[in-house]
Amino acid sequence: MSRRLTLAAAQLGPIQKAEGREVAVGRMVRLMETAHRRGAEVVVFPELALTTFFPRWYEEDLANADHWYETTLPSPATAPLFAAARRYGIGFHLGYAEKTPDGRRFNTAAYVHPSGEVALKYRKVHLPGHSEFDPQRRVQHLEKRYFEVGDLGFPVVRAPVGGTEANIGMLICNDRRWPEAWRMLGLQQVELVMLGYNTPSLNMENRGFEAHHLRVFHSHLSVQAGCYQNACFAAAVAKAGTEDGHELFGHSIIVNPQGEIMAQATSWGDELILADCDLGMCELGRRTIFDFARHRRPEAYGRITGQTSSAAPPRWTPGQG
Amino acid sequence: MSRRLTLAAAQLGPIQKAEGREVAVGRMVRLMETAHRRGAEVVVFPELALTTFFPRWYEEDLANADHWYETTLPSPATAPLFAAARRYGIGFHLGYAEKTPDGRRFNTAAYVHPSGEVALKYRKVHLPGHSEFDPQRRVQHLEKRYFEVGDLGFPVVRAPVGGTEANIGMLICNDRRWPEAWRMLGLQQVELVMLGYNTPSLNMENRGFEAHHLRVFHSHLSVQAGCYQNACFAAAVAKAGTEDGHELFGHSIIVNPQGEIMAQATSWGDELILADCDLGMCELGRRTIFDFARHRRPEAYGRITGQTSSAAPPRWTPGQG
Repeated sequence: MSRRLTLAAAQLGPIQKAEGREVAVGRMVRLMETAHRRGAEVVVFPELALTTFFPRWYEEDLANADHWYETTLPSPATAPLFAAARRYGIGFHLGYAEKTPDGRRFNTAAYVHPSGEVALKYRKVHLPGHSEFDPQRRVQHLEKRYFEVGDLGFPVVRAPVGGTEANIGMLICNDRRWPEAWRMLGLQQVELVMLGYNTPSLNMENRGFEAHHLRVFHSHLSVQAGCYQNACFAAAVAKAGTEDGHELFGHSIIVNPQGEIMAQATSWGDELILADCDLGMCELGRRTIFDFARHRRPEAYGRITGQTSSAAPPRWTPGQG
Repeated sequence: MSRRLTLAAAQLGPIQKAEGREVAVGRMVRLMETAHRRGAEVVVFPELALTTFFPRWYEEDLANADHWYETTLPSPATAPLFAAARRYGIGFHLGYAEKTPDGRRFNTAAYVHPSGEVALKYRKVHLPGHSEFDPQRRVQHLEKRYFEVGDLGFPVVRAPVGGTEANIGMLICNDRRWPEAWRMLGLQQVELVMLGYNTPSLNMENRGFEAHHLRVFHSHLSVQAGCYQNACFAAAVAKAGTEDGHELFGHSIIVNPQGEIMAQATSWGDELILADCDLGMCELGRRTIFDFARHRRPEAYGRITGQTSSAAPPRWTPGQG
């Protein structure tokens, strides 16, 4: 069986706060049409793809924020995506804010099979930002207020994707900077990582020290290293452009297991990029340099799971021996 | 107190099998003289800096290989390095093959303070290659034969380096491809990683699938990601050029905590590169995106220490729900 997959990353331009889901969903359906015409078998949409990136707005009482969350999938608003998937025989990855029946809130992603069934769901583990209003910040980043830490771990499943099967996993936005998250997927033989993000061009927490021009570099560096070190493909897909006055940097990419960028979005709007992925390429790293069974040394990694924060090292002084 | 450090990476050209330690040590002393003239306060030499990369040669009985190993540091052969360090007030990092009094063999690195004292020692954990003669390979890579897995963990110490103090740690060659190794140092607040390597331009294990032109990219990608994700500097220093007929790719680099390359060797011979490192730059990442205490989630990282090799994921099929 061929292990070739034609993969599309569907970057979204900005979604303004005043726009309803039907605007975003309409644009996404058009991207799925384009993907179908170009022969794509799976389409990856970004994080929180249905609305503006609302965690930049403070809300005292989360009960007033329910309109940002999905309580069912599909819903009347998202049904056209499921219909398009069936019509075109295309699976899709969607990031969205999830509110569960028992009132819990997560930053979630799902991979929807063309049948309309959810084959895999992930809830973001590495929530950036803060939980209370921060008067020091010009722009808030309240993910820790709007969402709980994901409770599903880093799941991987082997699922039909296009005409083949693939081991798929997901990361969301800030997760991509954490090598632990990539490794958790690599330890489950992930072949394709679907990864959506909403990343501002300016780091509002940096207070003047981080060079803004390095922001895209850091994103790509993290994704390329993650793919290389875990011998997998990734579609890292942005919401881009100026959303409610705040610029998101775009630059969505598809990366192969050698860490090479196969395709890159260069606009700040809705844009489809495509790559033919030979999933057999994941084998090389796994049999050689990154043959975990031969080379990993978990007995030397104790601090990674044994402590959360860093600890100061001991001091050495001359004469101490 | 200023936290500026003038750091030198001293790439070495090839050392042929027939050459004695005095040849390498003479070249290293000259590099230390150059480093001193240029104002460097610390010099980082590569892995196994005193000899050819001998693990490419098979030896049935390791007792016949003792001449590749150091049993004391300094020895008469290495004493000129210690003398130069004292003379110039420069600390240095040296990679060497170590044989302990009880007969154990390690691929080791040491940071020697200008006083001649060893402030930090590390023994390579991620030994690549294999332990028995492999008739499939045109070139052997017998590190797993010549060395035991390092037994010192990934130590970090706060030590005087130049006119300041720095949290220093070490990786050796293949360690740099493993994000676990970087994270172990990051969890001890490492500020400067000293890292030597001997990496061939051709991967003799790849059997034709890995593009040779990506070898340097993979090395740099791993070092740049390690520095960015752990907010530290690194000097990644090669043995370069054609050694006993086998090409090593060089391209030594000094990298800052933003993952930027500050200096790069472009020859395949002895070459000194220099960078002014403001260790205060390590603070930015640690207070913001990579504030481990706020953002790491060790409870979700269980597989990293809980399993060595990867495990196949469960299968999902349509209709399964």
